[in-house]
Amino acid sequence: MDTPAPLARLSLNQQTTQRWSLAEAIDGCVRAGVPHIGIWRDKIAAVGLERAVGLVRDAGIGVSSVCRGGMFPAASATERAARIDDTRRAIDEAAALGARTLVLVCGAAADRDIERGRQHVADAIAALVPDARAAGVLLGIEPLHPMFAADRSVITPLGEALDLAEQHDAAAVGVIIDAYHVWWDPQLAAQVRRASGRIAGYHVSDWLVPTPHMLLGRGMMGDGVIALRRIRHLVDAAGYAGPIEVEIFNQAIWDRPGDDVVAELVARYCVHV
Amino acid sequence: MDTPAPLARLSLNQQTTQRWSLAEAIDGCVRAGVPHIGIWRDKIAAVGLERAVGLVRDAGIGVSSVCRGGMFPAASATERAARIDDTRRAIDEAAALGARTLVLVCGAAADRDIERGRQHVADAIAALVPDARAAGVLLGIEPLHPMFAADRSVITPLGEALDLAEQHDAAAVGVIIDAYHVWWDPQLAAQVRRASGRIAGYHVSDWLVPTPHMLLGRGMMGDGVIALRRIRHLVDAAGYAGPIEVEIFNQAIWDRPGDDVVAELVARYCVHV
Repeated sequence: MDTPAPLARLSLNQQTTQRWSLAEAIDGCVRAGVPHIGIWRDKIAAVGLERAVGLVRDAGIGVSSVCRGGMFPAASATERAARIDDTRRAIDEAAALGARTLVLVCGAAADRDIERGRQHVADAIAALVPDARAAGVLLGIEPLHPMFAADRSVITPLGEALDLAEQHDAAAVGVIIDAYHVWWDPQLAAQVRRASGRIAGYHVSDWLVPTPHMLLGRGMMGDGVIALRRIRHLVDAAGYAGPIEVEIFNQAIWDRPGDDVVAELVARYCVHV
Repeated sequence: MDTPAPLARLSLNQQTTQRWSLAEAIDGCVRAGVPHIGIWRDKIAAVGLERAVGLVRDAGIGVSSVCRGGMFPAASATERAARIDDTRRAIDEAAALGARTLVLVCGAAADRDIERGRQHVADAIAALVPDARAAGVLLGIEPLHPMFAADRSVITPLGEALDLAEQHDAAAVGVIIDAYHVWWDPQLAAQVRRASGRIAGYHVSDWLVPTPHMLLGRGMMGDGVIALRRIRHLVDAAGYAGPIEVEIFNQAIWDRPGDDVVAELVARYCVHV
């Protein structure tokens, strides 16, 4: 029960080297031998989808995910439809890039009614399933840490994400397990087991004590308190053998040279993940 | 389903007016007609228990709780025993003050092993039940928001606190429901129903967007996104008719004159709780 994760599964989520363009991030991965990348849509938009596809193809790098669709709840039906349409475009981008998964960050309630927000999310995902299936893209519902329930996702524990995913075919809707978002959950082991066949991605970073910032305070693996190897073994035992994305939102890490950050995360991945 | 909470249930948790001494806080409650107070142990220590008992008796104010015992997990058995002993003293203080409840903030794991931390908590509560019963004090396990899992409490969702409490007699161990800590939980309604007969206290504040600070960023009721009246009706429907404590950790509120804060919270309580 203490086997390091293989380097063949390592993926750089672009948020970790946020200042790098898509071309720079792909080059950085190639230099460091990181075989996958998780691509953000603002980075695609900066170069255009066609050029992004060319960069990925020329480098021969795997695209573990595209981030992100979602942000579904809204006060008006018009706005909700616009967000579903935007996620349709994200599905197309993921398909063009050969990404297995589109990450869904579900969004916050438009008012004080979190239950209505959850219904908006369920409705939007149901509307998108035919598009995902047609495109061959898996929708990965990412439950976020409950501290983001008011501004980023009404979907928080893993069990809640699974309740949503299980309303649909496992080929169309899965879940993203991010250690940072779920490590605190007393039901984690049971819910990861339940997620078997639904795991669309696994993300790692670490929980720093104290946490320097609610959004930009994630730590490099090994600098915090999350039992990362234990959780990765749970995810493996549930049958997930796909890419493991390192996704670290942290201003201090963004301020460092990207190559240094990638070198460090490769080393930390080997020791802690 | 939109009845204001009666003023007869209102309690000032001393953290809300953190700069006030115990005597000042009791005087402030009496001036404003707040019939209960939640007392912190550092404020008791500052005047001595005997004087604290005299202040409470002379004012005729109800003591809704004493805060806090707990912080149970620790690396060594010696340190764990010391924390249990400290909570025994807290039980004695609660009994002397006529408090119905001692609030337990359970503590964080001593290392990266959150499951071991949870076992430390369970063991400590089991050790303290005879003391609580003998003193006639209810141990109120307070599940904290998961963002405090690394530094304040390994016990986070309400369901987990109930799993712990249900191992013991309901006359000795209950749960504290604090809207700030539990509002995000998709199982909230079901778990509050389950808590019937175990609710040792109900606390309110609000979740601000953005949250200005992880510890000191709670808001005055009505300034945030929590559906406070809905949750209070859930708590009422579960049979809880005891005091409702306003507990707001917020530097900007601490910096204001206590009487202004109390006047505002009375008004906000009537409108939002």
